[in-house]
Order: sequence, then structure tokens, then C-alpha cells
Amino acid sequence: MTFNSQPDLAYPMTMNSVIQHIGGHRWNGVPVLNYKEEGTHFKAISRQILFEGGPKLAAELRYFEIEPGGHSTLERHDHIHSVMVIRGRGQCLVGTTVYDITGNDLISVPTMTWHQFRATTDEPLGFICLVNIERDRPERPDADSAANLQALPVVGDFIRL
Amino acid sequence: MTFNSQPDLAYPMTMNSVIQHIGGHRWNGVPVLNYKEEGTHFKAISRQILFEGGPKLAAELRYFEIEPGGHSTLERHDHIHSVMVIRGRGQCLVGTTVYDITGNDLISVPTMTWHQFRATTDEPLGFICLVNIERDRPERPDADSAANLQALPVVGDFIRL
Repeated sequence: MTFNSQPDLAYPMTMNSVIQHIGGHRWNGVPVLNYKEEGTHFKAISRQILFEGGPKLAAELRYFEIEPGGHSTLERHDHIHSVMVIRGRGQCLVGTTVYDITGNDLISVPTMTWHQFRATTDEPLGFICLVNIERDRPERPDADSAANLQALPVVGDFIRL
Repeated sequence: MTFNSQPDLAYPMTMNSVIQHIGGHRWNGVPVLNYKEEGTHFKAISRQILFEGGPKLAAELRYFEIEPGGHSTLERHDHIHSVMVIRGRGQCLVGTTVYDITGNDLISVPTMTWHQFRATTDEPLGFICLVNIERDRPERPDADSAANLQALPVVGDFIRL
């Protein structure tokens, strides 16, 4: 079914082209999901899928929100993350450096690079994260990698395993 | 060259992992580009490439900013656009509908669907736009398509050719 009999203007009308932001970084009809199914290696973080990707778009865009004092999993993987902060502030580890991050900052996580995001203690940290649809599973540090990271100044205090 | 002799922590240190937002939707070292090389079918719009994509990311993320009263080109293409408003407000045509859009709203432009973005008259409209790296060239309406669009209520008044 199409809206218009002029084929030039036809497009699938079952799709709503605009999803409204309903405030507080929640979107109309977009479910707030668990960050991951289970684990104790992350804390107080949620996930929303803003754009799913598909046959015409090889990437997807997610919104993650970390509550004050919470953090993402310390992990690495072959695929890369392209991140933009859109709410609050916090810090992130990328490789062997801990960065302060705030609104509209851009973070690139290269391939096979340890990374972890953490909110400040007094406000949430919200960020969008762009990834390929087809991607490998993250890997967490083994005992040796964890010890190496813990031995580094700043990084050792920052990370949560 | 790597920062650390522990191979597990090595990553290319030539890359700065964080690009700071320096205010006003400008980013450290990110050039403000022309929207397109030339044309009279758009008005008062700039482009910044926030994430370029590459071997590990099949999409790129751009930031477009339209000055008050300006607009993007009315066009369509096989590839899809996934858009999030991050500054100001305005309107967009997607298919045969004109939508009001404001901060954090999400807009999906399906394949081969006419679309055009316009800022309000009193503030800029800024949005990020996610696209595949590999994509076809946009097509502008020919005389028949333009006439079909101009004949539609609301749409006819909205579009700029």
C-alpha cells in the first residue's frame, strides 16, 4: 500500500519516519534495555537502540546511559567504537590513557584496545555509540592483562574488573 | 612504536582517541566544510565529518548545521539516512510528510524517498547524520517529480528546489 498514486512519491507508509524524543533521553517507542544479559563487571548502565541498521545501513547507533558512579565493562574487541557524549560527564579509559569526557566530545576506540566508561558520581553519563552490525564478541581481560593494567599509574585506580 | 612494552596493552599512539568539543558545535581539529561543492538548491548549510569510518566501520557520521532560514537539497537516493537533531529545531520533509523536529528527535529517511531539511527562522538546526561509506549519488527531482511534489498540500509550500 502506498500513500500516493504517483509512483514517484510512493514509499512504505507503515514506517514512521520520525521518532520523537520524549524527554530525559527517552524516545517514543524505543525500549530501555539491559546493557548486557548478566555479569558483575558492569554497574548501573542501560541501552537503547536508536537506529538498527539493515540492508542499506551496515552500522547501528545505540544510546548508553550510565548512572552516577556506574561503569561499563572493561573489554576489547576487533570492531571499533565511535562515541559521542550527549549527556553529563565522566571518564573513559582508551588503551592506557584515562580521559575526562563531557558533552559533545568524540571518542574513538581503536581495534583490540582496552576501554571502559564511567560516569561521575553526581550525574549520569549518556553517550551514543556507533558500531558495525557485524561485529565480534568483546573479550574481557584475563589475569595477566588485568595485572598489567592494574600496574599502570592512573589506569590501575580507574578500572573496575 | 608502542607506548608500552607489554604487547597486550599496545595500540597505535599516533591516534588521539578523544576529540574535544570546543563549544558551539565545533570540534578540535575538525574542519567546517562546504555542504556541497556548488549549487543553488541548498542554502546556508555546513558539514563536519565526526567519524570517517574505514576498514572496521562501514558507516560515517557527519554533523550538518543549517543557519536560520536555510535548507538542505531536496533529493533522494538508494542509501538511507539516520538522523538525530542535536541543536535547535526546524522541519523536514520525508516522503510526502513534513515533520516538526527538535532536540534529540530521530529521523529515518528510507531508500529512494524525497527529503529536505530546513531550519526555523530564528535559530540554527544542527543534526548528526549516519550513512554507509559506500553510497550512491543523490538525485534531484526532474520537472515531473517537482510538479508532483509542488501539487501536494503542505509539501508544496515547504519545498525549495
